[in-house]
Amino acid sequence: VAEKIDLVERLLAGDRRALARLISLVENDGQAAVRALSALHPHGGRAHIVGVTGAPGTGKSTVVNELTKLYRAADVRVGIIAVDPTSPFSGGALLGDRIRMRDLAGDPGVFIRSMASRGNLGGLARATSDVIKVLDAAGYPTILVETVGAGQSEVEIARAAHTTLVVEAPGLGDDVQAIKAGVLEIADILVVNKADREGAEHTRRALQMMLDLGNEQHVRHHGKVMSAGPAGRAESAGIQWQPPICATVAIRGEGVPELQAAIAQHYHYLQESGAWSQRERARAAAELDHLLRDRLVNHLFERIGSDAIERAIAQIAARQLDAHTAAAMLLADAGLV
Amino acid sequence: VAEKIDLVERLLAGDRRALARLISLVENDGQAAVRALSALHPHGGRAHIVGVTGAPGTGKSTVVNELTKLYRAADVRVGIIAVDPTSPFSGGALLGDRIRMRDLAGDPGVFIRSMASRGNLGGLARATSDVIKVLDAAGYPTILVETVGAGQSEVEIARAAHTTLVVEAPGLGDDVQAIKAGVLEIADILVVNKADREGAEHTRRALQMMLDLGNEQHVRHHGKVMSAGPAGRAESAGIQWQPPICATVAIRGEGVPELQAAIAQHYHYLQESGAWSQRERARAAAELDHLLRDRLVNHLFERIGSDAIERAIAQIAARQLDAHTAAAMLLADAGLV
Repeated sequence: VAEKIDLVERLLAGDRRALARLISLVENDGQAAVRALSALHPHGGRAHIVGVTGAPGTGKSTVVNELTKLYRAADVRVGIIAVDPTSPFSGGALLGDRIRMRDLAGDPGVFIRSMASRGNLGGLARATSDVIKVLDAAGYPTILVETVGAGQSEVEIARAAHTTLVVEAPGLGDDVQAIKAGVLEIADILVVNKADREGAEHTRRALQMMLDLGNEQHVRHHGKVMSAGPAGRAESAGIQWQPPICATVAIRGEGVPELQAAIAQHYHYLQESGAWSQRERARAAAELDHLLRDRLVNHLFERIGSDAIERAIAQIAARQLDAHTAAAMLLADAGLV
Repeated sequence: VAEKIDLVERLLAGDRRALARLISLVENDGQAAVRALSALHPHGGRAHIVGVTGAPGTGKSTVVNELTKLYRAADVRVGIIAVDPTSPFSGGALLGDRIRMRDLAGDPGVFIRSMASRGNLGGLARATSDVIKVLDAAGYPTILVETVGAGQSEVEIARAAHTTLVVEAPGLGDDVQAIKAGVLEIADILVVNKADREGAEHTRRALQMMLDLGNEQHVRHHGKVMSAGPAGRAESAGIQWQPPICATVAIRGEGVPELQAAIAQHYHYLQESGAWSQRERARAAAELDHLLRDRLVNHLFERIGSDAIERAIAQIAARQLDAHTAAAMLLADAGLV
């Protein structure tokens, strides 16, 4: 325990080795990780967490690198977490990292960590969120979280970000609609990278159409609920964010300053609309709820024993008992009703 | 309550109107739904639930229709649930349904239900799972669950299926890799539909490569854990399922009998490997766990009041208290430690 507290103090004092050791500690989970995260909690909540996601081949890593260079030029420290849910290998073997190593190596204002699959997505999302907490407490004002892969993993990991960039590129097939359905929902900023290639304008227009369609559906869907308003139409309360589409040629740095400006605008939107503090509150509520549920179930197990639970599960599976009746019986046995 | 019991009895007696009313009842959630599902529970667990998913334009609906015709030719009753997480409209307005209505309308051995988004994915997955339970209890031996959309929704809804078909088609762009990463994991059977089109063989080979790659990674990933085996290599315990790739031209019914045979083989695999009963047990455990957690949290709220919880959340969000310490304090206050 003494060593853990020492690590936290060294982290807060800016010790880079302590940072690396604490990250390994929280990645490995367990009681020591819980204690370290509890000790770090008062020092977090300041970093702007920016998620960068998109299909392979869109140039996500290059976008992340060029953004990092701009932040560094303004002397802003940057934490980079590269998450690959499809790879079982951890520790910096990802392609994007190798490019990054070359460009950003030796800059003490940049901290890079690669994270790979740990068998299940929930585990990876949890570990990513914990590593973010460590970098946040260590005082990195900007944390870029790059996600490789498509679908569920992006959405899970995007939950940890304040601002989510979805990177597209022309010439990756016309399957835009199929992929976008889920991913567009999480995009705060859309990036059309490789914008000097043929089809870039087509990609941009397709994205714009989907955004417009999404807005339309939103109005239609929420129109009913709010139809009591004066004009009988959906009236939005407060400031709204319209995801911009940024065109970049990241490999040459083109359009990246404008993208950085869009990220800063989204940060200000979050602060001014109250969305930032709402999000902090929602996260606190979710974390407390999760912990309470875990502890309560453990408490129940201790009171009535795991045998009783196992018997109930077997009876439900055998269709002798339904789950609602079983839950009521177990809680009554435990004196918890 | 009397009416609900009556509905359940009529359902079990084969009354089609009772089936439709019970489905509406469980879709709308609430206490009446809970009671109905509890009453139905002993009568479920027999249906083979087959999920059919894939990007728009692959011909999923046609595959579902042609499979249904084959089942009907063998006098097997079929329940069809068409789920569209991207549409806020419910009640049979989906394109696939209109085709189905034409082909299958008037057959009393087929029951079709469309389900659309209810604002959140969790709600849709829950409702889908409940509608499956009603059809299962009503004695439909085969239930086809067709999902439109890509990504998270497919995965969520696939959890309800015993056997998941992922439908591909040539000419939808070369983005196979991007989409497949997540979706391949859930596929028990891969279908290359529109197999008479140019590029079908390319699509088949790409899928085969990804399957092979997946197997390789699996061996490599699990190789370490199991390296104590005699040959120092991964030795699988029990029967393994290798997802087959079925080529179909569903619009002409070609390849559909072979696909139906593959579905039957997967059913036998599930039964013989013990995976079917493991799955029933896992589902019972998850359902009980979920209910216990909900009830325990409600119990805690009643004991200490929601004000205390709200205060704790505010303190966590303000970084004055960490969630672990807050949870421990609240449980101590409630006398639950």
